Amino acid sequence: MAIITLTTDFGEKDHFAGAVKGAIYSEHPEVRIVDISHSVSPFNIPEAAYIIQNAYANFPKGTIHIIGIDSELNQENKHIAIKLDDHYFICANNGILSMITSFILPEKMVEINIHNTIKTTFPVLDTFVKVACHIARGGTLEVIGKPIEKIKELKNLVPYVNEEKTQLIGSVIYIDNYGNVVTNITKAFFDSVQKGRAFEISARNHKFKKIAKSYSDVLDFSLEEHKRHADGRGLVLFNSSNYLEIAIYKSNTQTVGGASTLMGLSFRDTITINFEKPKPIIYNH
Amino acid sequence: MAIITLTTDFGEKDHFAGAVKGAIYSEHPEVRIVDISHSVSPFNIPEAAYIIQNAYANFPKGTIHIIGIDSELNQENKHIAIKLDDHYFICANNGILSMITSFILPEKMVEINIHNTIKTTFPVLDTFVKVACHIARGGTLEVIGKPIEKIKELKNLVPYVNEEKTQLIGSVIYIDNYGNVVTNITKAFFDSVQKGRAFEISARNHKFKKIAKSYSDVLDFSLEEHKRHADGRGLVLFNSSNYLEIAIYKSNTQTVGGASTLMGLSFRDTITINFEKPKPIIYNH
Amino acid sequence: MAIITLTTDFGEKDHFAGAVKGAIYSEHPEVRIVDISHSVSPFNIPEAAYIIQNAYANFPKGTIHIIGIDSELNQENKHIAIKLDDHYFICANNGILSMITSFILPEKMVEINIHNTIKTTFPVLDTFVKVACHIARGGTLEVIGKPIEKIKELKNLVPYVNEEKTQLIGSVIYIDNYGNVVTNITKAFFDSVQKGRAFEISARNHKFKKIAKSYSDVLDFSLEEHKRHADGRGLVLFNSSNYLEIAIYKSNTQTVGGASTLMGLSFRDTITINFEKPKPIIYNH
Repeated sequence: MAIITLTTDFGEKDHFAGAVKGAIYSEHPEVRIVDISHSVSPFNIPEAAYIIQNAYANFPKGTIHIIGIDSELNQENKHIAIKLDDHYFICANNGILSMITSFILPEKMVEINIHNTIKTTFPVLDTFVKVACHIARGGTLEVIGKPIEKIKELKNLVPYVNEEKTQLIGSVIYIDNYGNVVTNITKAFFDSVQKGRAFEISARNHKFKKIAKSYSDVLDFSLEEHKRHADGRGLVLFNSSNYLEIAIYKSNTQTVGGASTLMGLSFRDTITINFEKPKPIIYNH
Repeated sequence: MAIITLTTDFGEKDHFAGAVKGAIYSEHPEVRIVDISHSVSPFNIPEAAYIIQNAYANFPKGTIHIIGIDSELNQENKHIAIKLDDHYFICANNGILSMITSFILPEKMVEINIHNTIKTTFPVLDTFVKVACHIARGGTLEVIGKPIEKIKELKNLVPYVNEEKTQLIGSVIYIDNYGNVVTNITKAFFDSVQKGRAFEISARNHKFKKIAKSYSDVLDFSLEEHKRHADGRGLVLFNSSNYLEIAIYKSNTQTVGGASTLMGLSFRDTITINFEKPKPIIYNH
Repeated sequence: MAIITLTTDFGEKDHFAGAVKGAIYSEHPEVRIVDISHSVSPFNIPEAAYIIQNAYANFPKGTIHIIGIDSELNQENKHIAIKLDDHYFICANNGILSMITSFILPEKMVEINIHNTIKTTFPVLDTFVKVACHIARGGTLEVIGKPIEKIKELKNLVPYVNEEKTQLIGSVIYIDNYGNVVTNITKAFFDSVQKGRAFEISARNHKFKKIAKSYSDVLDFSLEEHKRHADGRGLVLFNSSNYLEIAIYKSNTQTVGGASTLMGLSFRDTITINFEKPKPIIYNH
C-alpha cells in the first residue's frame, strides 16, 4: 500500500489537514496517510526543511511526501515534484527541499503544470493531492510537470569557517519540543574542521569544551541519585540527526525551562566554535 | 473500508482520543479512522460546526463523522445521528450540525435511543462508537434511534442586511491557525447583496475597499523582493471555504502577529459592509 | 492486522513521531499505528502512566503499546517489555507501568537485551520499534530480553488513610484538557473507606460535601436556561476512568478558566477527605 505523508503548518485545530486526508481517500482509497507534523511554525521554511529531512528516510522507499508550507501559487512560487533517494516530494519551490538536496542529488525534478485543469485556492488540497495520488497509482513525474534543472535554495544552511580553520560560525536552525537548540553544524562537518584539536563552543555567554555522547552523560553514577543535581544541567551533543545540539538535561520549557529559554537562544542565533591553531607540520628529513 | 472521522475538543494530550480509537478497532477491526481535529476549543460549538462543515465533503460518500463536543447526555442534550449529503454524522443535538443543514437538507435524522443498554459516563466512547460501528457494518439509523423532524439551531449563522440593502452586518465565526479572521459572510451571500456596487468593509478601525483574489495579491511583482514589504500587510478575501476572511500576508500569531491579534478581532466580533445606494432604475419610455 | 500504539512526550511539531512511524512501516508494512498522545509533558512519568492506563484497555487484545518517555538507555534506566492483560508494553523501566501493575499482575516481564546489535541515540526508533515489530510478527519476549521479577514503582500512587479511618489524603495526578483536576483516589478505594458515612472533600479552601453523578448534575432543569448560571460552577465526581475529579462545568482554561486555574490546583497538590467518625458497634446482648 502506497504511503503519503503530510508535513504542514496547518496547525492541530483547523479543518485543513482533515480536508486533505479526505481528499486523498476520495481520490485513492487504497493509500496509507501518515502525519509527520502539522505544527511547523507558519511560513517557517527552514523548520519544515529540518523536519522533513529527519523524518523521510525512515519511511519505505517509494513513499510520497506532501509538504504544505507557503504553497500559494504565484509567479515566483511555483509547485514542484522531486524524486530523490527513491522518495517523492511535492511542495512549493521555496527552499524546503534544499537541506536534503545539499546532501543527496535529486533523480528527477519537475515543475507541476496541471493547474489549468484545477481551481487553486487551497493548493495542497487542489494540486498536491492530485499529484500524490497520481504517483501512488504508479504515474510518472513527466506527466504532471515539465523537467527543471534547479530548485530554490535556502541561505545559511552551511556554517562558515575562516581561512585559518580556527573558527567555525554556525547558527540555530531549530528549537525542539524540549527546548533543545539545534545548530546547522553536522557531525561530519565538525569532524572535518576539528581534526582532533581542542575547541570551545560559545553560545551567548555559555561555553562548552566537550561534546557529550548522550544526555545521560551529565549523570555521575558514583553519587546517589539525590546528590547528582543533574536536572537542568547544560550540555552539547550531536543529536540523533547528527546535528550539534545545545541541550539541558530533562528540560521542560513549561516548567524548569529548556536550553532555548534558559540560555536565551533563538532561531537564527549564532554559535561560535574556536579551535586551537593547527599545529605546523614539521618534516623531519 | 468504511471511514470514521473524529472531531472533538479532547485536546492533543489526554487519553480520550486514543481510548475512542481503541474502542472503534475493538468493535470493528476493518474500519479506517481519520482525525479531523481534537483541538476545538472546549465546548465551542460554532468552531466545531465550522470545522466539520469544511472538512466533511472532501471525504468519500458514506463516511461516518463522530463529533465529540459538549456531548454529555441530559434531558436537554440528546444524542442524534443524521444522514445528509450521503454522509453520516453522530453528535449531541446542540447546534453543531446547523451550519451544514442551513445549506443542505438532511435525508434522515434520529435521536439515538440505545442508552438503556450502555453506561454513559464517556458518551463518545460508550455511545457514538457503537452507533458509528453499527453504521459502518451497514446498519440503518432506524435501528439505533427514533426519527425526529428538527434539530437545534445555532444563532447568528446568517449575517444581517438592512431593508435598503445598503448595509450588511456579519460576525467573526472562526480564527484560524494563522490568526486569519473568518466571518459568517459567504461569497454567495455577499454577491447576492452587492450586485456589482462599490463597498467598504469595516472591522474595528480597519477599512477595506476591495477583495483580493489570493493572499499573494498584496505582492507587487514589479518591485524587487526586498522592496515589497508585503509581510504583515492586511487584506480581505474569500477563503478556500468561500467565507469572507480578514487576513495578514504571511502572518504568525507567535511572532509577527496575525489579523486577530494585530487588528484586535475576536470570536463573535462584528464586521460591517456598507454599499453604495442602489441606483434607481429609470424607465426610458 | 496488529496494532502498535504510540504514547510519547515528542510533542506535535518535531520529526520524532513521524520518524518512528516511518521506521515501523519500513520494518513491518502490515501493521496499524495509532497515536495515543505525543503531548505528554516532557519527562512527566506519572502523566504518561495515567494516559496509558486509561487508553490501553480499549484496544483489542494483543495490541502493542510503545511508550517513549525518558527512554535514554543508561545503567539505571533499562528498557523493558511486559505482557499484561493480553497487551504488550515497551518502555523504559522508570515507573510508567506501575500504575497499571498496581491493579493487574504482569504475565511476563523482560529487560530488553538486543542493544549490542543496534545504535541507540534515539531509543524509541532504534530499539522499541524493533521490539514492537518482533512482537507484531508473533515473536516472544524471551527472544528480545531476559526475564525480570520486578519493575520500578512510582511513589504516591495510593492515597493515605489514617488509622481511625477518619481521614483520607490523596494528591493530584493529572490535569486534563478542560483544566479538570484528577486525583489518585479511585472510586473503589473511596468506597472502601467511606462505607456510607458523610464526608467533606477539601482542595485548598474549596469544600465539597457531595459527589455528582455527572457534570450536568449542576444544572437545575426546573429553571429556564438563562437563569441557571451553571457555567463555571465547581463540582466533584468520579470521572470516566473512575478517579475522583474536581471539575468546573463547561470550563475552558483559555477563556473562563478551569478547576486547575480557578482553584489554584497543580500536579502533586494535596486533596483531603474527612469522614464522620465510624459509629461504635453496640452489641445488644
